[in-house]
Amino acid sequence: MTMIEDGMIAPLLLFLGDAPDIGWAKTASGLAQWRPEDCAGQYRLAGCQVDLGLPDMDFAAARAAGVRTLVIGIANDGGFIADSWVPHLIAALGAGLDIAAGLHERLADHTEIAAAASEAGRSLHDLRQPKRVFRPGTGKKRSGLRLLTVGTDCAVGKKYTALSLEREMRARGMAATFCPTGQTGIMITGRGIAIDSVVADFISGAAEWLSPPADRNHWHLIEGQGALLHPAYAGVTLGLVHGSQPDAMVICHEAGRTELQGYEGDFACPSLRAALDVHLAAARLTNPAVRGVGVSLNTSLLDEGAARDALKRAEDEMGLPACDPLRWGAGAIVDHLARTFPA
Amino acid sequence: MTMIEDGMIAPLLLFLGDAPDIGWAKTASGLAQWRPEDCAGQYRLAGCQVDLGLPDMDFAAARAAGVRTLVIGIANDGGFIADSWVPHLIAALGAGLDIAAGLHERLADHTEIAAAASEAGRSLHDLRQPKRVFRPGTGKKRSGLRLLTVGTDCAVGKKYTALSLEREMRARGMAATFCPTGQTGIMITGRGIAIDSVVADFISGAAEWLSPPADRNHWHLIEGQGALLHPAYAGVTLGLVHGSQPDAMVICHEAGRTELQGYEGDFACPSLRAALDVHLAAARLTNPAVRGVGVSLNTSLLDEGAARDALKRAEDEMGLPACDPLRWGAGAIVDHLARTFPA
Repeated sequence: MTMIEDGMIAPLLLFLGDAPDIGWAKTASGLAQWRPEDCAGQYRLAGCQVDLGLPDMDFAAARAAGVRTLVIGIANDGGFIADSWVPHLIAALGAGLDIAAGLHERLADHTEIAAAASEAGRSLHDLRQPKRVFRPGTGKKRSGLRLLTVGTDCAVGKKYTALSLEREMRARGMAATFCPTGQTGIMITGRGIAIDSVVADFISGAAEWLSPPADRNHWHLIEGQGALLHPAYAGVTLGLVHGSQPDAMVICHEAGRTELQGYEGDFACPSLRAALDVHLAAARLTNPAVRGVGVSLNTSLLDEGAARDALKRAEDEMGLPACDPLRWGAGAIVDHLARTFPA
Repeated sequence: MTMIEDGMIAPLLLFLGDAPDIGWAKTASGLAQWRPEDCAGQYRLAGCQVDLGLPDMDFAAARAAGVRTLVIGIANDGGFIADSWVPHLIAALGAGLDIAAGLHERLADHTEIAAAASEAGRSLHDLRQPKRVFRPGTGKKRSGLRLLTVGTDCAVGKKYTALSLEREMRARGMAATFCPTGQTGIMITGRGIAIDSVVADFISGAAEWLSPPADRNHWHLIEGQGALLHPAYAGVTLGLVHGSQPDAMVICHEAGRTELQGYEGDFACPSLRAALDVHLAAARLTNPAVRGVGVSLNTSLLDEGAARDALKRAEDEMGLPACDPLRWGAGAIVDHLARTFPA
């Protein structure tokens, strides 16, 4: 039994709704990938195009199998509770499950869901809303080392890159701590802050809180959010960049993506060089010594040969090591990081 | 009797607390300057160093003079209700006044104040918290023209510049609407959105909502917030820049300021050129045609000769008209704007 944040209890049943593709189910797939021991099954509605390879369970079967919490594992644009989910969520409560979610809209604010939870004596866990009050950023330098993953777009692998770096660095005996900034990372680790959900004035202050002063050789590996060249989310990104005061940045991209996801026809995906440069320029405000240390490519759309080619091209273009952390590990970036910042 | 936003009713008594200087009292001074007909008096605590030239009134005298609402006219860092204010606010409620505030901390969430309001049958108006749900920004181009005031720092005159431009443009028969983005602007006009108080994910979406599609020759004059080269508030600024899709920008600065206010010793105030360029570069994401159209200098620290010199130097440096809108009007910027964007 694992407790996270304000008490979401495993084992977990992952609610996939009618997700049309894996991009919509990134919270569920993140849990399945990074916390597999706690994921007992998946629950899918008609039309769902995602299969995480977990047993399909209805709520009674899940409860009988010991499941404690139904996790809403999908994220829609805007983070609201879709009407089509509501009868299923109420049924889950009636079957004895708690519900956890990382949406902007709170379960506890939804009249029908809140009433059903109260009647069934079950708990609702809203993990996206900060439980703390923050202050404006100070810009004051903190001790320790920080790496922030940044991207050409949303959903390009910033979280997985930071998690993979943590795994690799710890395997080498380096002091490293993954700092989640979104609901999936919070659900995976039981810590962190959904930086896109704080009051706008306090983005950088919340980011400062997230990676406090630390030992000289300790790396905070901060999950990036959004992208500076994104028309919707760049404000979140900039506050996170300023508050994180990164010493190092890894630029993340999905190989083959040419337009911003969800903004096709309106916004092109920037080049690796343009994207890294704009993040470095912004980061210099609070850490003039910041440097790019690697490229992380999600090559899942490519076969092995094409993926190797894409990594080689990225290395040549950027003069930095390029990895697909999930496919072949993040070792080359950690090698370069260790050389660039010797203990 | 004037109704604004959710019902703050004039005449108003301006609460100045123990404000050490005019910078802390910018909400009150904005009301006194731009809505003088509704400001009946000021209420100051021991140690207050600000005098707006209004009659000093206690609550009983204010009530007798017809005052309906006590407005918290000061803003501290973080926007919280200071303990030292509380007994005075409770006394105001007891004397029959409503209270309005534009703080991050809500009057309605303060146990003692809420209880006192309830007992006295008075209303509490929290004007900073958005009453609407926003969506992420779309980046889609809207009709009409938009001007955004941007700055080298906070509190350099972005709001006054936009208000002055509105006054000057309307006097010339141009279609122009001031769009407030902060609590003072909201209190002055009864409209707008406190952009620093929205959930971080929705900054640009809220900015898109604030200046909807309009007639081809209509100018939305959008009050800027923060600054892109500010370690605390740049996230708010960037979302506002992207969502506003400005066609034109005026760069605002306080003549003589060399360090960011409240960040002395840590952050220098950027040059006009550096500050305008970083805002233009960011704005090009959603409007590649954006251009700088003027410089607004707050010269209140300078005598007339020095102020004229500062404006001349700014014009030479930037190749744009420079004005002090409160001292000598914003006519030169409007001249340039009309030439640059002919009807």
